[in-house]
Amino acid sequence: MSGTIVVGLDVGGTSTRAVALTLTGERVGSGRAGGGNPTTHGADAAATQLLAALNAALADVDTAAVRAGTIGLAGAGRLLADPDGRAAFDRAWREAGLRCPYAVHGDALVAYASGSPAPDGTVLVAGTGAIAAQVRDLRLDRVADGHGWLLGDAGSGFWLGREAVRRLLATLDRGEHPGPLGRAVLAELLGTDEVAARPRATVDAVVQTVTRRPPVELARLAPLVVTAAAEHEPVAGSLVAEGAAHLAETAGRIRPAGSTEPLVLGGGLLTADTPLAAAVRAELARRWPDAPVRTAGDGAAAAAWLAARDLPEVTDPTTLHALMVRPPA
Amino acid sequence: MSGTIVVGLDVGGTSTRAVALTLTGERVGSGRAGGGNPTTHGADAAATQLLAALNAALADVDTAAVRAGTIGLAGAGRLLADPDGRAAFDRAWREAGLRCPYAVHGDALVAYASGSPAPDGTVLVAGTGAIAAQVRDLRLDRVADGHGWLLGDAGSGFWLGREAVRRLLATLDRGEHPGPLGRAVLAELLGTDEVAARPRATVDAVVQTVTRRPPVELARLAPLVVTAAAEHEPVAGSLVAEGAAHLAETAGRIRPAGSTEPLVLGGGLLTADTPLAAAVRAELARRWPDAPVRTAGDGAAAAAWLAARDLPEVTDPTTLHALMVRPPA
Repeated sequence: MSGTIVVGLDVGGTSTRAVALTLTGERVGSGRAGGGNPTTHGADAAATQLLAALNAALADVDTAAVRAGTIGLAGAGRLLADPDGRAAFDRAWREAGLRCPYAVHGDALVAYASGSPAPDGTVLVAGTGAIAAQVRDLRLDRVADGHGWLLGDAGSGFWLGREAVRRLLATLDRGEHPGPLGRAVLAELLGTDEVAARPRATVDAVVQTVTRRPPVELARLAPLVVTAAAEHEPVAGSLVAEGAAHLAETAGRIRPAGSTEPLVLGGGLLTADTPLAAAVRAELARRWPDAPVRTAGDGAAAAAWLAARDLPEVTDPTTLHALMVRPPA
Repeated sequence: MSGTIVVGLDVGGTSTRAVALTLTGERVGSGRAGGGNPTTHGADAAATQLLAALNAALADVDTAAVRAGTIGLAGAGRLLADPDGRAAFDRAWREAGLRCPYAVHGDALVAYASGSPAPDGTVLVAGTGAIAAQVRDLRLDRVADGHGWLLGDAGSGFWLGREAVRRLLATLDRGEHPGPLGRAVLAELLGTDEVAARPRATVDAVVQTVTRRPPVELARLAPLVVTAAAEHEPVAGSLVAEGAAHLAETAGRIRPAGSTEPLVLGGGLLTADTPLAAAVRAELARRWPDAPVRTAGDGAAAAAWLAARDLPEVTDPTTLHALMVRPPA
């Protein structure tokens, strides 16, 4: 057993991370490459990044000792349904020298597993988008939201950014002066926080600037909201409270009242120590007072743990989780 | 004075309407052509529709008797700022045989004037989008919303359609059966109101169907909401109430509390006898109990009246309004 190695990958839109771990939690290799999502990057480009991350992680590893692997991936279902994508990933896996099988799981499951080893629980993720999922026996079961910026993602980075602009436009419509958040949004979008003598000219400039770009870029304004809320800016504070309520409502669509199973928070907006994360924790504690709330950690290590726990020599996956998946700093 | 004729045009995205009227309100010609908005159709195509509508309206008219004209147009400011667009409209005007000058006004002002001759008041328009404007001396003054579907249009047809889909998705996320409105939305989008054995498959199909189309097409679902609300469907009823509150809030951004100036309701969602129009009237009566609320009528006739009232022989524009602009049926 001591020679057994498992590999985990966390494949995201902007980076691909790979890690090789022993069953005592020793990190024998790690690698990082560019975004590797086959849906957004194309199957071949994604497989190239996968291979680069794997090669780096396996540089000092006897690949014959690798017994299992897991790839965590947003839109995993689409990869599994796409023969070309699956073939490209198979090739990358073999080219890295690996002969063991691998599993593909959704990034929401991997985020959950990075926060808790419990087979059943809930994961709530807020980054550019927002999604919640029930986990049953470490598989994704029911899912809520994740419907994209046009129809969903309530409480996400996109949502925070869009609402910040909407509040600014309403303020300008009323002929009032924007507060600190509104001025920060103006400066970010227009390069100046001055309102024109005819406020409608500023309104038109804001609308035109936003609508010229892909809508999802509104998520780039979310850090302004989070920062302003930390400084007790009132508009930002109300948006964070509203966003947190949306996220808790999303979790409530799939998580039973009174559940004491763990809740894991994932995504850039909830894993950092932000006012939104604090507000979400407060909402969750109000709805599920007896449930532990965890923060997602190292996704690649969690993917490796998901691979390891099905090996016959693993008898205590919970202890293995403590060894392999480090808690967040 | 008896020989004087004025011309009005109401130029919209789907139709262009022209009317020729005497100063006693006699309708001596009318015409209709396709959409003539230069922003969406291009200046030359728009001018072609303008000319077709004008030619029809002037078929039995001595064009030398036409003393004034007004064109009502969404995005009038953009036309005035566009030399090519203005030149194309000038050419159409001359080709129709007209030698008098013409004015261009925003469609919101023309909607206002079709409902009231009072120089000062408020117009609130809800169709695919939503906008409110203060009118001062029969010119548009301050404007609220009209920010487009991504950032505004709260309470509009787009908004009602999008919210209907969001409510449906939340219901499916919760594993509940959609009500009558949700089933109507499913039937419209997917051709069947059956929910798949795995509801997430239906969720994905709805999201994919909507996101494949231009977002603004969500407005095509608004009639389902209005119809369901008329049948007391509870989800539709709450959406209509929420939309009406948004529209009243939009008006409140620019209209002073306690104002007794007229309020004119325009746009397809507010000029028809719909539950939304009734809910908006109730909201407006609550906020401005002493203000008359009117419904927008014939925009082309109102444009003609706006042209006529500046003629030296017109001494009583209010009486002329009663003669020229028929009240809505």
